[in-house]
Amino acid sequence: MSLPGEFEMIRRCFAPLAGPGSLSLMDDAAILQPRPGWSVVATVDTVISSVHFLPDDPPDLIARKALRVNLSDLAAMGAEPLGYLLVTAFPVDTDEDWVARFARGLAEDQAEFGIGLLGGDTSATPGPLSLTITALGQVENGRALLRSGASPGDRIYVSGTVGDGAFGLKLAKGAGTRLSPEARAFLLDRYRLPQPRLRLGRRLVGVATAALDVSDGLAADLGHICKTSKVGASVEAVRIPLSSAARAMIEAREASREEALTGGDDYELLFTAPAHAEPALAGIAAELDLPLTRLGEIRAEPGLAVIDESGQPLPIGSGGYRHF
Amino acid sequence: MSLPGEFEMIRRCFAPLAGPGSLSLMDDAAILQPRPGWSVVATVDTVISSVHFLPDDPPDLIARKALRVNLSDLAAMGAEPLGYLLVTAFPVDTDEDWVARFARGLAEDQAEFGIGLLGGDTSATPGPLSLTITALGQVENGRALLRSGASPGDRIYVSGTVGDGAFGLKLAKGAGTRLSPEARAFLLDRYRLPQPRLRLGRRLVGVATAALDVSDGLAADLGHICKTSKVGASVEAVRIPLSSAARAMIEAREASREEALTGGDDYELLFTAPAHAEPALAGIAAELDLPLTRLGEIRAEPGLAVIDESGQPLPIGSGGYRHF
Repeated sequence: MSLPGEFEMIRRCFAPLAGPGSLSLMDDAAILQPRPGWSVVATVDTVISSVHFLPDDPPDLIARKALRVNLSDLAAMGAEPLGYLLVTAFPVDTDEDWVARFARGLAEDQAEFGIGLLGGDTSATPGPLSLTITALGQVENGRALLRSGASPGDRIYVSGTVGDGAFGLKLAKGAGTRLSPEARAFLLDRYRLPQPRLRLGRRLVGVATAALDVSDGLAADLGHICKTSKVGASVEAVRIPLSSAARAMIEAREASREEALTGGDDYELLFTAPAHAEPALAGIAAELDLPLTRLGEIRAEPGLAVIDESGQPLPIGSGGYRHF
Repeated sequence: MSLPGEFEMIRRCFAPLAGPGSLSLMDDAAILQPRPGWSVVATVDTVISSVHFLPDDPPDLIARKALRVNLSDLAAMGAEPLGYLLVTAFPVDTDEDWVARFARGLAEDQAEFGIGLLGGDTSATPGPLSLTITALGQVENGRALLRSGASPGDRIYVSGTVGDGAFGLKLAKGAGTRLSPEARAFLLDRYRLPQPRLRLGRRLVGVATAALDVSDGLAADLGHICKTSKVGASVEAVRIPLSSAARAMIEAREASREEALTGGDDYELLFTAPAHAEPALAGIAAELDLPLTRLGEIRAEPGLAVIDESGQPLPIGSGGYRHF
């Protein structure tokens, strides 16, 4: 990997990934022409071996997850993806086959999400393998979904199911041995290959008042919306949508409902919308075949209250009632 | 650096750097609204400690150079900068004062170039410190300066002086002890704190036919233009513009004229323009108080010929006449 010829090999692996605007990866920068009246949305995330993934994780899955968590940020803004910049720092002993498998994972997700590689940078590093992806998308001027738009009375929704990512991580670390192979596979897949909710994000433009993607855990992420919107929230615990695999894990006492609330890594969209948006949201859920579950309501008083079936506040972590 | 409070400290260092479009670094992504009829230009570069800089280099200079090499790529495209995304991976033992000095360097260059921080990501790493900057700019639709537009008969120009960056690196490694303190300081500064030619890049839109910034060395970079434009080039060695400090280093036999041609890191703009652009270029040079030196001509035949005063081809590196 330290020889120029090996960098040439890497370029060969990445050159076929070049998309429109990349200028065939031959120029000093990429060019993106958003539609007239649209803005460009930009986000960046890094993953480092042994910090964010395990050194023996499959390279194609490492690549795809790194790409998807960035696409998830675009989804949370209501943006459609345009492409991405890729920075790789490979240890000098990186196997050439590893890089080829890594590139194949990117190619697979490029096809799935209709995007191309726009540019990037490759270095050799004396440290652990690290990947940095800058995702670029576009959204109508002034219409991006922000964290700051929630108002008292807005309803709180989440897409899909919650907790699968955190439970999948527990499985990857050795828990959940009593689960069925199907449930194990489902949760591991949810952890390893999150689904950026790009179509949902686009449909929420003009409907949702605030949105983000669940990456720090539902409770913490709802806290981000509350803090940025200067509001509070009340959530009914019984409404938290759980997959049957997650329910099986809770029933087997290998995880708790609280962990589903506080674990991260689901990459579902958490958003708020006024009450009159309810029929529109039902239509979007049906069209996308994706559950959109109403969890509770935005309130003027700061803090997050999680309410049990009898209307009593439930403890979350050490607190029970979080102030932001 | 591994404690949450220390990440909080880092966020405190970076929060004051937030610019327009960053949404105060509180959202999932940044939003850039280019002017109507303009495209967004995006480029990314990483620097890694002990690979791209020395661990004991001053943190403010590391930050500023990392930012400037990216701005130089925008300059080479004729773009004006909009802002940047910053990814930092700090070793767990990074000193808090180091981060503060690093952030002050960024603040200084943000003021100098009129840009702000748009977003980013901070991790702790078991490896060496690394910095990744994604620079974003804008240019009129279809008007970006590309490497691919040079035609036979076009003249070849370079801004400023060539070789200073490579000679400065030699000084940093211990050479040049017989030089005057002023000459040493000049060359070291050119190496440590390159000047992105943003104003020149903007003025070359509609004037230059191809452009890039000199980062691999003049000869190699002219090769990039030739390869991408499918042309060749002839350059007169005697015309290569050298600073008086670089000339002093050559006279002291501590460096050669050939090293000025093949060394990298000058971040001057190398560009081509038709003969009729000569008066316009003279006007731009006068207005910016920046020499624009005509080096030679683009030819139909592939390859780069460097000609000495008697018209004979000079050897460059091992070849003397490079094929691409």
